[in-house]
Amino acid sequence: MSDTQSSVHKVVVIGSGPSGWTAAIYAARANLNPVVYVGVAKQDPGPILPGGQLMLTTDVENYPGFPDGIAGPEMMMKFEQQAKRFGTQVVGEDIVRCEFSSDGSPHTLHTSGGDTIQAHAVIISTGATANWLGLESEMKLATTGGGVSACAVCDGALPVFRNQPLCVVGGGDTAMEEATYLTNFASKVYVIHRRDELRASRVMQERFLGKPNAEVLWNKTVVECLSEPDASGGEKLSAVRLQDTVTGELSDLPVKGMFVAIGHTPATKFLLDTPLDFDEAGYIELKTRSSQTNIEGVFAAGDVADAKYRQAITAAGMGCQAAIDAEHWLGDRGLH
Amino acid sequence: MSDTQSSVHKVVVIGSGPSGWTAAIYAARANLNPVVYVGVAKQDPGPILPGGQLMLTTDVENYPGFPDGIAGPEMMMKFEQQAKRFGTQVVGEDIVRCEFSSDGSPHTLHTSGGDTIQAHAVIISTGATANWLGLESEMKLATTGGGVSACAVCDGALPVFRNQPLCVVGGGDTAMEEATYLTNFASKVYVIHRRDELRASRVMQERFLGKPNAEVLWNKTVVECLSEPDASGGEKLSAVRLQDTVTGELSDLPVKGMFVAIGHTPATKFLLDTPLDFDEAGYIELKTRSSQTNIEGVFAAGDVADAKYRQAITAAGMGCQAAIDAEHWLGDRGLH
Repeated sequence: MSDTQSSVHKVVVIGSGPSGWTAAIYAARANLNPVVYVGVAKQDPGPILPGGQLMLTTDVENYPGFPDGIAGPEMMMKFEQQAKRFGTQVVGEDIVRCEFSSDGSPHTLHTSGGDTIQAHAVIISTGATANWLGLESEMKLATTGGGVSACAVCDGALPVFRNQPLCVVGGGDTAMEEATYLTNFASKVYVIHRRDELRASRVMQERFLGKPNAEVLWNKTVVECLSEPDASGGEKLSAVRLQDTVTGELSDLPVKGMFVAIGHTPATKFLLDTPLDFDEAGYIELKTRSSQTNIEGVFAAGDVADAKYRQAITAAGMGCQAAIDAEHWLGDRGLH
Repeated sequence: MSDTQSSVHKVVVIGSGPSGWTAAIYAARANLNPVVYVGVAKQDPGPILPGGQLMLTTDVENYPGFPDGIAGPEMMMKFEQQAKRFGTQVVGEDIVRCEFSSDGSPHTLHTSGGDTIQAHAVIISTGATANWLGLESEMKLATTGGGVSACAVCDGALPVFRNQPLCVVGGGDTAMEEATYLTNFASKVYVIHRRDELRASRVMQERFLGKPNAEVLWNKTVVECLSEPDASGGEKLSAVRLQDTVTGELSDLPVKGMFVAIGHTPATKFLLDTPLDFDEAGYIELKTRSSQTNIEGVFAAGDVADAKYRQAITAAGMGCQAAIDAEHWLGDRGLH
């Protein structure tokens, strides 16, 4: 093997959420010497967060294996430790541009530190970011477990929300789905929508509105999240301040939880100039039941390629698949 | 809701490996009151093992979240605790026969205890069992972490196998794949095959035989696993006794690990009289990137529907998908 060849990485993983670390664990155990770029560069619509969305999650109760729950950042630290234990190299930078080859030669990746690296196989696991309203009071409560969340399935079953009034912001199918899910726990679920009709499909609307504790507040936007001190010295949501989009009138709605459901944006901006296939919502398209993209040697895993399930456990499963697929792909080409 | 309707379960989960428990965790958190039938009945080719194949795994190093590894049975206990914490009902029986409805009425399931139950949604997660040679010495070492395994990806990277001579029994693509994988760790990998040619595809054979530490032993079967005491008071594999299938001659081959790669059998015997679709290898067929089978309200997750990845983390991810798919399916029909 020449010097040039030996400087080509077998596998580079981009992103360090559940899918990225799981891909690294499996690739490292297969002796592929994976390198993880954790993602710290400024992206649009925001940074690729090292550790992914779980770094914003105070209490993960649904990742199997932790019956008492685990804090999101602690969980990601365990994933990272496990990947490192088997020899994963971790670089505190991001990949800002990719030049994917189509002739079997290695792919070229540009790092946020200004380096250029080469890799036979690339696993993209940059995740997606929830879209937020953009309020300062919203972000403060979202990052401290104060009752503001962008994922009802993740957080809706927490004891703090049981038999409490909650609100969901949005008007699409996902908003209806999250709102309907929350009706199982909440005393009341308000959907707050800025217009006088919903984008959601009729069946989803009916499903929500068929619940006895469901209500839609039309022509309203949330302009501020109001909070009060909680028992542990932090702040928790007490109400949302609404503005009527027609009259401009302000009013306060007492709720213990606000779930923002105005969509997600996959972190793919740095890939948009490549020939990768994306679906109409901007997620990376995969071949049936595998992690293969349309480009040879390029695999994707986790929320960047999954608009449907978006759970830590499903992302981790996809990361495992990507590493196994990459290992087979490298092996078939005599690169491993 | 009438008495009859209220006696219909929303979700019944069959099987209690990583996929079954994960489905239960998610279904319970969605207030679907899932019931898990853990599987204890005698099946062909063996029992549905409560806890699944991990109950035979002494050290799980690749399930993300446990950087120091965790014993398989301990891990499954944590999964079960987590499912129970959110209200999963666990029944220590098996489902022995299913009558799936096609008219939207509930499915009927027969338990090993002689009961008949009804469920709107059924999640099949009965797993698969590795095929073994059937030797007493083999099973003893396989169940005690003594160096005999049916999964190179799971166990091959364990320190005990590093730089040691290992053998793989089998002659198909999976055997070649596992053997090739092991060449990365082992000082030498022998493939032991009962005939004088392999079933494996040419590319897989070449991939293995291209390794400097690869060798195929033709016309040989393993008739006994020989062991010696290890440091912790147990027994570990020291050699395999081979019989030549042509001459009948016996010989001992010193190896520290034996990997049996003669296929898996999905635990589907109790389903074969239903209209479920199976693939040619007998695994349950799923619709693209979901857990839906061809029967309304019947979902599958884990190894029973996955001949390709077969990892705890991928099975758990599929279990999550099945619960989310079941929840949507029930909601769309006003059953939740």
